[in-house]
Amino acid sequence: MPPTPAPNDDVVDHLRAALPGRVETDPALLAPLTADRSGHRAAGPPLAVVRATSIEDVQAVCRIASAAGVPIVTRGAGTGLAGGAIAGDGEIVLDLAGMNRILEISEDNRLAVVEPGLLNGRLNEILAEHGLWWAPDPASKDISTVGGNIATNAGGLLCAKYGVTREAVLALKVVLADGTLLSVGHRTVKGVTGYDLCALMIGSEGTLGVIVECTLKLQPLVRGGTVTLGAFFASLEDAAGAASAVTRAGLVPAIMELMDQRTLEAVAARTGQDLAGRGAYLLVQCDGSDAVPTTERIAALARESGGTVDVTTDPVEAERLVALRRSAFPSLEALGTLLVEDIAVPRSRMAEAFAAVRALEEKYGVAIPTTCHAGDGNLHPTFVYDGGAGEVPEAIWAAAGEVFGMALELGGTLSGEHGIGLLKRAWLRDELGEAQFDLQRRIKQVFDPAGILNPGKVFPDASAAGRRATL
Amino acid sequence: MPPTPAPNDDVVDHLRAALPGRVETDPALLAPLTADRSGHRAAGPPLAVVRATSIEDVQAVCRIASAAGVPIVTRGAGTGLAGGAIAGDGEIVLDLAGMNRILEISEDNRLAVVEPGLLNGRLNEILAEHGLWWAPDPASKDISTVGGNIATNAGGLLCAKYGVTREAVLALKVVLADGTLLSVGHRTVKGVTGYDLCALMIGSEGTLGVIVECTLKLQPLVRGGTVTLGAFFASLEDAAGAASAVTRAGLVPAIMELMDQRTLEAVAARTGQDLAGRGAYLLVQCDGSDAVPTTERIAALARESGGTVDVTTDPVEAERLVALRRSAFPSLEALGTLLVEDIAVPRSRMAEAFAAVRALEEKYGVAIPTTCHAGDGNLHPTFVYDGGAGEVPEAIWAAAGEVFGMALELGGTLSGEHGIGLLKRAWLRDELGEAQFDLQRRIKQVFDPAGILNPGKVFPDASAAGRRATL
Repeated sequence: MPPTPAPNDDVVDHLRAALPGRVETDPALLAPLTADRSGHRAAGPPLAVVRATSIEDVQAVCRIASAAGVPIVTRGAGTGLAGGAIAGDGEIVLDLAGMNRILEISEDNRLAVVEPGLLNGRLNEILAEHGLWWAPDPASKDISTVGGNIATNAGGLLCAKYGVTREAVLALKVVLADGTLLSVGHRTVKGVTGYDLCALMIGSEGTLGVIVECTLKLQPLVRGGTVTLGAFFASLEDAAGAASAVTRAGLVPAIMELMDQRTLEAVAARTGQDLAGRGAYLLVQCDGSDAVPTTERIAALARESGGTVDVTTDPVEAERLVALRRSAFPSLEALGTLLVEDIAVPRSRMAEAFAAVRALEEKYGVAIPTTCHAGDGNLHPTFVYDGGAGEVPEAIWAAAGEVFGMALELGGTLSGEHGIGLLKRAWLRDELGEAQFDLQRRIKQVFDPAGILNPGKVFPDASAAGRRATL
Repeated sequence: MPPTPAPNDDVVDHLRAALPGRVETDPALLAPLTADRSGHRAAGPPLAVVRATSIEDVQAVCRIASAAGVPIVTRGAGTGLAGGAIAGDGEIVLDLAGMNRILEISEDNRLAVVEPGLLNGRLNEILAEHGLWWAPDPASKDISTVGGNIATNAGGLLCAKYGVTREAVLALKVVLADGTLLSVGHRTVKGVTGYDLCALMIGSEGTLGVIVECTLKLQPLVRGGTVTLGAFFASLEDAAGAASAVTRAGLVPAIMELMDQRTLEAVAARTGQDLAGRGAYLLVQCDGSDAVPTTERIAALARESGGTVDVTTDPVEAERLVALRRSAFPSLEALGTLLVEDIAVPRSRMAEAFAAVRALEEKYGVAIPTTCHAGDGNLHPTFVYDGGAGEVPEAIWAAAGEVFGMALELGGTLSGEHGIGLLKRAWLRDELGEAQFDLQRRIKQVFDPAGILNPGKVFPDASAAGRRATL
């Protein structure tokens, strides 16, 4: 049966006329765009995907979509974990993966200007030749784009020492919904002219504008070697106590990661390592000129908390200590389908957060192995369940909802680094409160009065049942 | 002759009823509130000043002012350099200097919660007892408030290494124009729930809301001593070349300051030091565990650029090297009335910016001694003229306008750290462009639809002649 002509066919025609050869409607090409790495998938395929190669392309798409009132979902590498780049029925995918050039590297100004589709890892390979690096370090860095890192204000392992993405962006070029090109931020280290719209764009998940050029604040490569520490503890409380002692002592490791017993059990099951009786694992890496004495002090604190501690500067031995942490998610994926959550709590409340997750495991009868960026209090409670992606059982959502509520009660947040996207929008009001929720909605309307930029992401969808009345 | 009853007398009555004992209308108390440290002064005195002591006080003032449509000018210590806290005819001054308590210091979470009226220097004295510090370091820190530092996104000497104020604030409580209390930002290191309204508030100069509580990101006190370097150069170009070489080499001093010959002449005239033939002075301080080797490398680069270099770890000798820089502004003040400007340029363009300032000195026949935070490219061209404060001659504004234009041409900004306030609002459009200017105005309207929060600051005054038609 031939497909019924969609009412938006004329939009696709307009796109084809304006962007010849860059518009695709082949269902096989559209299907992957309904998903990201969150496990979620939109029901229907999008209208079309436009492979933009220039700012002018992006402006043309925005103008056409604006005129037609058709939504745009901006997409980079599709590695998001919150559904922010998922596109569905009636939407145009604006694919920026082809805008991946490095336009400038300035050692004198310690900055780079790049297009948004460039992969973080690729950028850092090239920067290293100049003795520089861009600090944002999400676990996805080899496969995620600079633009996506900025759109989600990506975190990662290094944030306690080197900051989040927001601190590593000087300026952006942004195309608004109506095609207007703006330059926000400054090429300078300091700049206080008007409101900080550059910071406002960072983490806005494609809902305020399309990021088309990124001026990045770079750092000199860290001198000296890295010292690695791995420590097993009898209990999570002991390990969290050691991590807290590190922060309290004013020590600043580059990386400090915590894994709970259930995660260690998954690693043991997959890799065959003997981790019996291990209650938790703490991985620490220190860099810079004081890496050795800092690690020695951390080792002492870990031993005071009952840890069995290894410290090394040998790359092979370090890799062994790091591999244990790196194998966490692959090992969990072998257990079933995952819903990876992403709360952050004040660092002093980490042990309470872990305990609350354990209590929810019992209440809901679900396994929730949990890892944590212990330098900054960002936990990833990971719900393991049977069933296909895109169909998270209600009981899992109920348990996740309790995790979010717990995070807020502890003074934390729904999302440390993954963003709100589709997955957490139902809880956004709980954190922001009604007044701030409304204010944020009104800011969205200032940038995108017709609501065509990534509608339904971050904020609850106006078209979703039961939501319309309150929007 | 008795004063004519003002039409806003009932507003003052309402304030008195709601805030007994905290409302002042004594002209002697109001007069200083018409000025700040910019040298500007409003023509008429404000209606009243309210000495707020609590969030509830601030909410009451906002509700009353909102209902009456009367403007509010929020004020801390009044140390601003751009006229942002100047209050005039028909305005209520909301004085937060009395809200100066420290509510919490958490070593475990490396944060402090403070009221906005607390002095930066006082906070840091107390934090030092806990082994912690708050990095924002404006020259005014002993006399300026945390809230004022945040409202202007204050800079200072340490920004290239330790960041600007925006990077040192986790969360804020903010009272909106209508009295609504919002909590923006996060108590956690990471947090990406919704738009970053905390960053948007930082640097908004009292135009979006009243900052009533500040959750500050702290750092451990830097371990080890400080190494100080002072170097004289035959020319500004040589000194700027040395500073650029430092950045290019990937070295990160805590402080790197540059003074031009005209500033040195002023210091010599005031202090009697023999600085004849000195073309420029570079002051560098390095801290942390690699301070000594870093300073040695900087000394080598300075000598390669022709510098006569002193390096010391002796506190007395260091004080001598630092005192030269510290005496710059007192020495300039002895020359006449000052208009202190505050452009920032990409670090590679510093020498060009200094040269352009020198050309403007000749063109306008005015002395413009210039100092520079050379680690971050923030220049303070300082216009010296005869005449009282508050009456900047047109020729000086014309020269300043050319300085701003030059900064933008070099890829820089109108204001690195002082803000726009009253003094630079006429040039705001030049930097933002019309589309972003309009967008920023609409964001202001979302927060403050009646326009009662610090009207006429940052954006050109709707009531100013010649501006009305475009607003």
